[in-house]
Amino acid sequence: MAGPTAYFDPARAAELDPATRDLVERRARVMGPAYRLFYEHPVQLVRGQGTRVWDAAGREYLDAYNNVPSVGHAHPRVAAAMAEQAATLTTHTRYLAEPTIAYAEDLLSTLPRTVDTIMFTCTGSEANDLALKIAKIATGGTGVIVTENAYHGVTTEIAAISPSLGGLDSVADWVELVPVHGDLGASVGAAIARLEARGIRPAALIVDTVFASDGAWPDVDGFVDAVAAVRRAGGLFIADEVQPGFGRLGHGMWGLERYGLEPDLVTVGKPMGNGQPIAATMARRELVEQFNARSRYFNTFGGSSVSIAAARATLDVLRDEKLIDNAREVGEYLLGELAGSGLFVEVRGVGLFLGARLESESRALATVNALRDRGVLIATSGPANDTLKIRPPLPFSRADADLLLTELDRALG
Amino acid sequence: MAGPTAYFDPARAAELDPATRDLVERRARVMGPAYRLFYEHPVQLVRGQGTRVWDAAGREYLDAYNNVPSVGHAHPRVAAAMAEQAATLTTHTRYLAEPTIAYAEDLLSTLPRTVDTIMFTCTGSEANDLALKIAKIATGGTGVIVTENAYHGVTTEIAAISPSLGGLDSVADWVELVPVHGDLGASVGAAIARLEARGIRPAALIVDTVFASDGAWPDVDGFVDAVAAVRRAGGLFIADEVQPGFGRLGHGMWGLERYGLEPDLVTVGKPMGNGQPIAATMARRELVEQFNARSRYFNTFGGSSVSIAAARATLDVLRDEKLIDNAREVGEYLLGELAGSGLFVEVRGVGLFLGARLESESRALATVNALRDRGVLIATSGPANDTLKIRPPLPFSRADADLLLTELDRALG
Repeated sequence: MAGPTAYFDPARAAELDPATRDLVERRARVMGPAYRLFYEHPVQLVRGQGTRVWDAAGREYLDAYNNVPSVGHAHPRVAAAMAEQAATLTTHTRYLAEPTIAYAEDLLSTLPRTVDTIMFTCTGSEANDLALKIAKIATGGTGVIVTENAYHGVTTEIAAISPSLGGLDSVADWVELVPVHGDLGASVGAAIARLEARGIRPAALIVDTVFASDGAWPDVDGFVDAVAAVRRAGGLFIADEVQPGFGRLGHGMWGLERYGLEPDLVTVGKPMGNGQPIAATMARRELVEQFNARSRYFNTFGGSSVSIAAARATLDVLRDEKLIDNAREVGEYLLGELAGSGLFVEVRGVGLFLGARLESESRALATVNALRDRGVLIATSGPANDTLKIRPPLPFSRADADLLLTELDRALG
Repeated sequence: MAGPTAYFDPARAAELDPATRDLVERRARVMGPAYRLFYEHPVQLVRGQGTRVWDAAGREYLDAYNNVPSVGHAHPRVAAAMAEQAATLTTHTRYLAEPTIAYAEDLLSTLPRTVDTIMFTCTGSEANDLALKIAKIATGGTGVIVTENAYHGVTTEIAAISPSLGGLDSVADWVELVPVHGDLGASVGAAIARLEARGIRPAALIVDTVFASDGAWPDVDGFVDAVAAVRRAGGLFIADEVQPGFGRLGHGMWGLERYGLEPDLVTVGKPMGNGQPIAATMARRELVEQFNARSRYFNTFGGSSVSIAAARATLDVLRDEKLIDNAREVGEYLLGELAGSGLFVEVRGVGLFLGARLESESRALATVNALRDRGVLIATSGPANDTLKIRPPLPFSRADADLLLTELDRALG
């Protein structure tokens, strides 16, 4: 009866080998039911290098899924920078630290000049939580506009603007949803009118600039108009670059560059430290000053020494290994091959953030599990969960793409 | 006119040496006004070992303040564990990982048996945000009781229960405050009555078990009764162990052990990974199950491989180097010497979390700055900010204590 699943089903533990079953059972006892495991047969990873990972039995997998180890698993330069800093000093931002300042200067130089001030956090959730707090204080508004299947994080405040989480806490009554398709400018205009009709002043439009949880759409109509509309209504535009940022789209550092957007606030996270917990909120100075006059913020681990060392090395590797060019070139090749394969209902995306839609969720899930058994890691995505999500570490080579295409062909053949 | 300050005053930049002034100005340009720097003359730390840190000019300081590098700055075992893991693999909790499970089992074994389930986050703020969300979902209540000068973190939800932050966002209308002094059981009973009179059902009493931001009080009357009172009203007790946890008080691992408390939820953070961003929410299984039935939670960096390696090594060092015993022994010695010195209005605390009150905030701040200039790092604390906060890394030795006492005597003499 039951179809294929994206996550391990604890009711099927008996199908696992004894060692895996033992581990799964120990895990369930202490980590509880909110923790899920990818795949019908969970993977126990113990080592990684570049675009490859290995399980406890020594089996190699091609990683076509993980965006956090963005410059490659266990990159030697990032690992060495972290090792050296951990052996030297780890401390917070209430002492002067030149590397933190230099990294902040460098990162801000990649954004539109109006975004000139950074505040470090540990996670994208914290970065969005802080950005929204700044927007609410600076505008005096409370209304927030997000896309229909948005995901911006898991703090209480941010879960309330993340309809993709579902559950009871989504979404708050000060939130209005807009569809990704059609004219985003018109949709945001209508959402502002709905807020105002309820007596709610808009604080912000917050959008993931590649619309990742809405299914990954690289060229949405009316985005520039949407930003203008929220500004006219007294609100701010927060560009959530947690997914598209740091070159994943293969065209510049940020998703907002595709549209020529000039955001009021920008949030970054996941790939920033190649796995180290570091994230940030960047904003126009005036907004941070308004925030600072009315609130306080200090994040003990945000921008701590080892995290900055990891972020510094990650940004250096991204440039030195020309990984943005690689994301564009391999992404274009892979997109073309997927589209030409005839295996998919629709293929879309940009850079190394691609979606390949199948006939049904069931077929997509079966494919993901078949690929895992063949040594290739991907996942499903999209509102209907019928789309293969291909989002590998950025050093993904043309040979890696060919291996993925071969295995996709076999799994779907 | 202006008295001594706890933080660097940007208006006095001209007093700094040129290199420090340049760095301070660069920092202010990119990191903004919300970032403050300790001391009238900021310290640029570049290296640490044990209880000592060094600035860019090579000057050595005794660190009698930092609780995050709890087993000592740049501890070689923690640094080695992080280095090895960073060079091997960093990934999240949706793949099986034996070290994560083993650490979870070990940490939970140190708590009352009813607290049997862990969820990893990156910061104490995230841990408290998640704990409160679980409590609200599990109880159906929304009211929260905290102490008058409580600090539990900086997410929007947790800033709203942190009166010590001040500013516009503190505190929400579903929060009631209780004083630390007097009978906490009676105060909490009255707070519940005030909530109920406003039609608000209590979700939780959340308390830092050493009452750190209220001034550090090790033996508060009526704490056990307070927990019983909130339970009778249908609420839960969240023990915030971010400050007292991991042995700082010198008597067992947790502050709650002083009272024999059995909490419904426990949150931990700061010292957990000796500086690595790792924190956790621990709870009775039933509460996590109720949460999971109605909400979702996944934290990308929470419990990632390098963070677990750091936490594992930190816990091993805490035990192997008998640092809890050291905290008790050196803490008792230091408390006795401080009390016998005649320099203070009041001395209090337990383990290596001590407060020494002076006649005024001005005198306390002058002392902290004088000590910084003499090569000893501490800070001020307490509602009136007139108390020296002494909270060093746990390997703080009797010789370190003697050095601190000598310098205190000179600074105050």
